[in-house]
Amino acid sequence: MRLATESRAIDADLIRACGDDLEAIDQSIRPGTVINVGGTIHSLASSAVQQRSETPRAAIRRVQDDLREFCQRAKVDRLIVVNLASTEPPPDVGDLPVGWTELDSLLDLPERCPLPASSLYAIAALDLGHAYVNFTPSLGAALPALVELAEQRGTCLAGRDGKTGETLLKSVLAPMFAQRNLHVMSWVGHNIFGNMDGVVLTDPANKAAKVTSKDKLLGEILGYTPQSLVTIEYIKSLGDWKTAWDHVHFQGFLGTPMTLQFTWQGCDSLLAAPLVIDLIRFTERAGRAGQTGVLSFLASFFKSPQGVCEPTFARQYEMLLAWAQSLA
Amino acid sequence: MRLATESRAIDADLIRACGDDLEAIDQSIRPGTVINVGGTIHSLASSAVQQRSETPRAAIRRVQDDLREFCQRAKVDRLIVVNLASTEPPPDVGDLPVGWTELDSLLDLPERCPLPASSLYAIAALDLGHAYVNFTPSLGAALPALVELAEQRGTCLAGRDGKTGETLLKSVLAPMFAQRNLHVMSWVGHNIFGNMDGVVLTDPANKAAKVTSKDKLLGEILGYTPQSLVTIEYIKSLGDWKTAWDHVHFQGFLGTPMTLQFTWQGCDSLLAAPLVIDLIRFTERAGRAGQTGVLSFLASFFKSPQGVCEPTFARQYEMLLAWAQSLA
Amino acid sequence: MRLATESRAIDADLIRACGDDLEAIDQSIRPGTVINVGGTIHSLASSAVQQRSETPRAAIRRVQDDLREFCQRAKVDRLIVVNLASTEPPPDVGDLPVGWTELDSLLDLPERCPLPASSLYAIAALDLGHAYVNFTPSLGAALPALVELAEQRGTCLAGRDGKTGETLLKSVLAPMFAQRNLHVMSWVGHNIFGNMDGVVLTDPANKAAKVTSKDKLLGEILGYTPQSLVTIEYIKSLGDWKTAWDHVHFQGFLGTPMTLQFTWQGCDSLLAAPLVIDLIRFTERAGRAGQTGVLSFLASFFKSPQGVCEPTFARQYEMLLAWAQSLA
Amino acid sequence: MRLATESRAIDADLIRACGDDLEAIDQSIRPGTVINVGGTIHSLASSAVQQRSETPRAAIRRVQDDLREFCQRAKVDRLIVVNLASTEPPPDVGDLPVGWTELDSLLDLPERCPLPASSLYAIAALDLGHAYVNFTPSLGAALPALVELAEQRGTCLAGRDGKTGETLLKSVLAPMFAQRNLHVMSWVGHNIFGNMDGVVLTDPANKAAKVTSKDKLLGEILGYTPQSLVTIEYIKSLGDWKTAWDHVHFQGFLGTPMTLQFTWQGCDSLLAAPLVIDLIRFTERAGRAGQTGVLSFLASFFKSPQGVCEPTFARQYEMLLAWAQSLA
Repeated sequence: MRLATESRAIDADLIRACGDDLEAIDQSIRPGTVINVGGTIHSLASSAVQQRSETPRAAIRRVQDDLREFCQRAKVDRLIVVNLASTEPPPDVGDLPVGWTELDSLLDLPERCPLPASSLYAIAALDLGHAYVNFTPSLGAALPALVELAEQRGTCLAGRDGKTGETLLKSVLAPMFAQRNLHVMSWVGHNIFGNMDGVVLTDPANKAAKVTSKDKLLGEILGYTPQSLVTIEYIKSLGDWKTAWDHVHFQGFLGTPMTLQFTWQGCDSLLAAPLVIDLIRFTERAGRAGQTGVLSFLASFFKSPQGVCEPTFARQYEMLLAWAQSLA
Repeated sequence: MRLATESRAIDADLIRACGDDLEAIDQSIRPGTVINVGGTIHSLASSAVQQRSETPRAAIRRVQDDLREFCQRAKVDRLIVVNLASTEPPPDVGDLPVGWTELDSLLDLPERCPLPASSLYAIAALDLGHAYVNFTPSLGAALPALVELAEQRGTCLAGRDGKTGETLLKSVLAPMFAQRNLHVMSWVGHNIFGNMDGVVLTDPANKAAKVTSKDKLLGEILGYTPQSLVTIEYIKSLGDWKTAWDHVHFQGFLGTPMTLQFTWQGCDSLLAAPLVIDLIRFTERAGRAGQTGVLSFLASFFKSPQGVCEPTFARQYEMLLAWAQSLA
Repeated sequence: MRLATESRAIDADLIRACGDDLEAIDQSIRPGTVINVGGTIHSLASSAVQQRSETPRAAIRRVQDDLREFCQRAKVDRLIVVNLASTEPPPDVGDLPVGWTELDSLLDLPERCPLPASSLYAIAALDLGHAYVNFTPSLGAALPALVELAEQRGTCLAGRDGKTGETLLKSVLAPMFAQRNLHVMSWVGHNIFGNMDGVVLTDPANKAAKVTSKDKLLGEILGYTPQSLVTIEYIKSLGDWKTAWDHVHFQGFLGTPMTLQFTWQGCDSLLAAPLVIDLIRFTERAGRAGQTGVLSFLASFFKSPQGVCEPTFARQYEMLLAWAQSLA
Repeated sequence: MRLATESRAIDADLIRACGDDLEAIDQSIRPGTVINVGGTIHSLASSAVQQRSETPRAAIRRVQDDLREFCQRAKVDRLIVVNLASTEPPPDVGDLPVGWTELDSLLDLPERCPLPASSLYAIAALDLGHAYVNFTPSLGAALPALVELAEQRGTCLAGRDGKTGETLLKSVLAPMFAQRNLHVMSWVGHNIFGNMDGVVLTDPANKAAKVTSKDKLLGEILGYTPQSLVTIEYIKSLGDWKTAWDHVHFQGFLGTPMTLQFTWQGCDSLLAAPLVIDLIRFTERAGRAGQTGVLSFLASFFKSPQGVCEPTFARQYEMLLAWAQSLA
């Protein structure tokens, strides 16, 4: 409550009015796992969670028990599991098997299994036939083996890294430079904010995943790679307000250098929340329509859309429209 | 030369290297007409042009003689006539006939013919079978009667108001707000620059045409009309550097107000020049392909695209791509 | 309440906690006068106030009765009367007498007396020996005759136009350019905001007073007058948030043009409030120290400081410090 | 030449017109030393300079020979030696003797002498009675022992780190927040530029000296230390154009958070050059007036002014004015 109102992101009266609902939700929160989440996230977990020692498979089983109980209580068969947890450091997945059977067998071998919590949650969900949406830059279900698992269980997945602010603008503005044949010489983006996400991202290992996800876009859209710089820094006073300053230096006709700068002042959680709700709705609808595997038509929601190469926001949005029309 | 180099828009050495060419072009410039161009543009014309008294039809004939001579000298049959002259005040065209025959008969009646110079140039060109492109907010060929004329003579036209800077950004950014369902509460745009275009736009009559062209876009894209404000002011020291500051105030989830600001520092002439060159190339190609009437596939080049209702830049660009593919 | 919380300027819980106090203050508000306040302010007054017909002297007497009653109720002898009312259009004071006796005699002649409400309040206060502070660009006590009145009655005055945001920055930044010998070519300032002050300033007559007060500073500080532009526009969605964008174009060594831009996002009422409180404290202290006439040491608080020619903020602040030290 | 004109910092015709003078200056440039300048600067030196092996004392002697020859050639007795070389990593000077005699004896012991090139140049100059001005954040003459040397030789010194852009603004704006009692919660400054200075500052060791010099100011001015962040990044396309974005987050009345942002687009060399010229003039004048030791009245020119604690620009400037008046 304090966090939400201190930065004036959310109206205090509104939170008060939702008090009973929030309390009920709070009661039903279940402990997760900190397997392969890196030191910073580990240090933020409760000591009970920190001290638990279990294999990846045991963690998955435990989460699956919680999911089953939740289904029973809520009287539903199908869930959409959404990962909104802190960004994990990128694991080394170079040697992981591409098939589900081979990956499955690693779950009993903690020392040989680099899968982070986000992927274990994905497995827990998909294996039970629940859909999985990864709103973070963490690995989650971004592995061929997990796509295979989703298809085997007749369910679907989408990800990753919700496109809420600066990167949304990049995927909207960079195509303009390409389509006007204005050569981008450099693109600098500085992000500052002060919520819990920011605390975690001050760890360079965690930040690496985020910056990569924000940065690779330009080359994909422009067809060449301008010098670029992306920083994300924790500035406590900003609370949930993400402020981004971008400086785009480009060449016009006859080589004349020109500049576009923008400042984005958005409330990160409130930009994310409606996207999460829409992702749940669309994923539910796709499931009902019998779609399995990667839901690539959701690309416009993500910084690193899974299952699709299209980086231009406008075209990603047309994919969403086309899907909607195909259902109608 | 002084104007071009003072604001460091164009490299002085480059202009020097083009000296002979520029000199030759300078020699072939022919006087136009100041019929219905308003007081400010009138006052900037040479006294010879100011004092000429002729009917609209006589002005058209004179320009057509110049065009014929130019064709002869350049040994070409077909021209693309591009209007790059200063922005005229918007004439009252409510009572103008929609058919060419009726409009044609007004050309001998100066008191009853509100057509401004830009439209007379359009008639001069189209009547001879030359294509006409209007890069300004002036009226030009934006009349049903002139589209009819173009079709009768088997030629084509496109317009109007080249989309070089702030409005380009509007037509790229506003769709993002619509597609993310972020309610735009207000959009303020302040433009400052110091070239000849700016001198003319300090006259409120001339500015009216420009501001309308820049402003109506938002309602078309968003589906509702946020409070908006567009100013264009002449600041001498900026020379050809158009600086625009836009402040977009929008509502996120739960009504929380958020802000996007951008500053665009572009050199207006150098943003316009390559668009003009491309418009000439595309118009020439369309003519060769036998297209007549309004070239609506050129919408992405214009603030107020003629013959098409699509205000979203990304979709306008897809129209250009589709045309290119249809030719291939 | 709605206005204060809608723009999230003030915490709703805080206003609720002050409810009884605000209610009590509300009860003691007395009607003023709309003599010479211009059409826009007139239209915002209650119909009772609008319809009252009285001479300037009668209005002053009425206000003085209210002040006497307030003193009695509050059990105090001396008041500090602060003008925080909407900005009036600048009256024509060229022919007004410089002596108090002559000005006094005009108060019975409504047709010959151009004094606006702000000046009548000033007379009401000063005549009773109460100090008068003008926090607005309105005329108030900025007349030689009223300074004479203050001295005769042994009281003091200060003004005018509280320096809260953009102009504060101007009076801080412009000296830097002068002291670094960087030639300012142009200074453009665009202000947008959405409170009641903004409603009144959309009337060009009222705005004139404000813009003059904001704009003349540059010439005084720089010693020459760069091209400048100041706009103030009402944008409803901003509520009490005043956003100013300033673009300063200056010449460095060898004539190279450079740029400083700033964006100020401040809550106008909350920037003004503590200045008003401090002005009351300092004026009270000066009165206790026996100072009469214009309190020029308060220059740092005002855009158009009365009784002093120093436009540089840093030096104005040193005047305040020197005064404080002189008292100690 | 290419560097100067590519970023349009300096007019190419102007450089051409100065060609002979620049050529002559180029001829008289003498090799310096790379003792204790760190790996990055070392790698940028010519191989001849890199391979020279000499004691600090030998380097000083060599430079002094060059200075003597220069005096002879220029037919002058006194020089003002200005350090404009790349920023060195900050050496560990904790154990250095405070007296000149003791420091002097270290010059023959390379392993025990941490003095970087900037300090050796300072010693070379001061020892011959020439004034020394340090325009960089490098150590230079910022040691008690070197101030003693200057006084012994009857000469003077000033430094360090020319205050050209972002820090100039900080020392102008931060006092405003203090004087208005607006609590600064955080101050973020991002600097991007692409000249040789930028190449050197990409080495974290070199950058450390710069960031410290830019950052400590806030605490000195405000009396408390807000969270702050200063980055300096090399962006090649910007050439000599230093662009700084600063985001100041402060608390107004009743704790309401407000924001000031500025963008500074200045040409670093052209901001520095006139300051260097003025420093030379003032230092020469002070020398003629018989002043020795640290010239503290030059504080307004430096980010880390030697010999004075006053961080407020306006007050530093008054010190300069007072000195000028004391001479008149």
